[in-house]
Amino acid sequence: MPLEDLVTGHGTAEAAVDNDIPERVRRTLEDYLHERLRQCGELDPAVAGAAGELTDFVLRGGKRIRPTFAWWGWRAAGGPAFGPRAGTMLRAASSLELIQAGALVHDDLIDDSATRRGSPTVHVRFAESHREHGYRGSAENFGLAAAVLLGDLALTWADDMLHSAGLPRVALERALEPWRAMRTEVLAGQYLDMLGQARADESPEAALRIDELKSASYTVERPLQFGAEIAGADRTTLEVLRRFGADIGVAFQLRDDLLGLFGDPAVTGKPAGDDLREGKRTVLMAEGVLRARQQREESTLRLFESSLGDAELTDERVRLVREGLERLGAVRAVEERIDTLSRSALSTLHTSELPEPAVRGLERLAVSVTDREA
Amino acid sequence: MPLEDLVTGHGTAEAAVDNDIPERVRRTLEDYLHERLRQCGELDPAVAGAAGELTDFVLRGGKRIRPTFAWWGWRAAGGPAFGPRAGTMLRAASSLELIQAGALVHDDLIDDSATRRGSPTVHVRFAESHREHGYRGSAENFGLAAAVLLGDLALTWADDMLHSAGLPRVALERALEPWRAMRTEVLAGQYLDMLGQARADESPEAALRIDELKSASYTVERPLQFGAEIAGADRTTLEVLRRFGADIGVAFQLRDDLLGLFGDPAVTGKPAGDDLREGKRTVLMAEGVLRARQQREESTLRLFESSLGDAELTDERVRLVREGLERLGAVRAVEERIDTLSRSALSTLHTSELPEPAVRGLERLAVSVTDREA
Repeated sequence: MPLEDLVTGHGTAEAAVDNDIPERVRRTLEDYLHERLRQCGELDPAVAGAAGELTDFVLRGGKRIRPTFAWWGWRAAGGPAFGPRAGTMLRAASSLELIQAGALVHDDLIDDSATRRGSPTVHVRFAESHREHGYRGSAENFGLAAAVLLGDLALTWADDMLHSAGLPRVALERALEPWRAMRTEVLAGQYLDMLGQARADESPEAALRIDELKSASYTVERPLQFGAEIAGADRTTLEVLRRFGADIGVAFQLRDDLLGLFGDPAVTGKPAGDDLREGKRTVLMAEGVLRARQQREESTLRLFESSLGDAELTDERVRLVREGLERLGAVRAVEERIDTLSRSALSTLHTSELPEPAVRGLERLAVSVTDREA
Repeated sequence: MPLEDLVTGHGTAEAAVDNDIPERVRRTLEDYLHERLRQCGELDPAVAGAAGELTDFVLRGGKRIRPTFAWWGWRAAGGPAFGPRAGTMLRAASSLELIQAGALVHDDLIDDSATRRGSPTVHVRFAESHREHGYRGSAENFGLAAAVLLGDLALTWADDMLHSAGLPRVALERALEPWRAMRTEVLAGQYLDMLGQARADESPEAALRIDELKSASYTVERPLQFGAEIAGADRTTLEVLRRFGADIGVAFQLRDDLLGLFGDPAVTGKPAGDDLREGKRTVLMAEGVLRARQQREESTLRLFESSLGDAELTDERVRLVREGLERLGAVRAVEERIDTLSRSALSTLHTSELPEPAVRGLERLAVSVTDREA
């Protein structure tokens, strides 16, 4: 610890907050959700039971990536790490996690995914509960209905949480622009994703466009802008964050695509190859298909095309797809793209005049979301 | 037209606005949605295409019941029918219609309803489009995904519309309480509804509790409160509106239940008996089951129980259920309850000191939403 920090005590305590954002977000969510659960209990115990499932899901996990980017957008624009303004900012940032919870619950339903964060997904959980209780009607429909409603509840509570965070009016007004944009963009990205799957659109360009909307913008760029706007950032700061965010956002999604096929399920929280089974047309797969076609690897091309969207795909076939992608150089191409984007983002950061703790914080965050070990 | 109105021109123009709320809501929604569609077009033409389906659905119809109640809450608390404040109020009130659009799109998906407002429901429409285009994968899944995402978009836009309506901060703060409450209550009511169907809960009390949450509160009480709070209503006004709203809200739902079985599909926009096919445990059906049991009408009881939730129920069996409900006096009991509630609501209104145009407006509205001809 530098002597200066020891003397003032300031740098240390500030670093202690900056290094602890995910846990502080979790606690902020816990406070908010427990109050909402209490209100649900007044409506009906069964409602509180169902909302409790949502609350568990939110508190159980996730890396709090979006609130963390929002926090660093705030710090980059000179927002303090301490005091009542920081507390308000933390509440506003945490509300992003509820949008994400709603998006995941609905996404898992749409993709019929079985696990998320290492546990059964919401629709699967409620369908199981229907069977256990021997309820009337279809267990699948019950699971669907519960997931639709709980996802809606999360989206609704996200708004409520933002608007009760205690932001000053001008700060809130500024924050509403990225808030509005990101919510429409993520839905737009999801729609283009499902449409691309249905149309079997193979182009890496289409996959990249979806990544831009679903991930770069929603996960990184907009949260950074959201935090910076709350702090009252000037145009230069906003522009630096936008460029940094656009690069890191796409790099993050490309890494996520690689982890979806090559990652350790114990770390990612879902089985390797699920993206493939769901027919997700990632940039990685689009690169693979393109290269197989160019290099006239007919059998690999057929392997890729028959695997995409095959819900019953075996682990052995997933392994063959992985081998094919590596042999054709698609994995290397995506890795190189991640490297290029990350270097571009860090260069933007280092040539900027953002304050020091933010530069370090954003740098660490950039590495952690694009890293092989993530 | 009274001479006084002709002379001042005031009463006339005021009445012209007050009598034209649904059409003004439609135009307000049109302006807002066209701007959002334009923004979607900038993201991607396919996104604008999908969002256009949502926009058509919102603009195509509905009686604009919730915005109309909100408008009369505003007028009851002394809000003007004219000028910039009225315009702002109209935008805020119209946002309720987008919550309702999201709820309907998701509800139709959950219930797998085929028609709404005389047209195919959103999930059915997108599934059809999938088949027509010969897309890859399951058409049903495609319809499900589109309905989930477009319902989310409607909920999201509802918030955006409220927060960009231009309400003064204090008015918005006051309005957020009913806004928050109604959105959680409607989801709570829908959840209890699906749980009641799954558990085959037969009690009229359970059905009534769902009606209170899903309809009385969400459709009438909260919108009235929302409008009144925006106008800065005093406690007496809020209390009058609350009592009036609680009565009319339940009466409205009871009428809706009757229309669902006995109404003209050309007027209601959906086939008679669909509530029955979906297994909806209305107060009407709960009364019927209770009476069949008390009067030991075993075969009618079996008819009721086997009809509830039978997706393939024939029109002939629907007719038999109708006859059974009438013979057992369940229809008369529900009609009497509607009468009692309506009379109680009107008496609250007439003994209040609400301003004249609001008393007349609320009276007409109360009659129209509980009327046999609705």
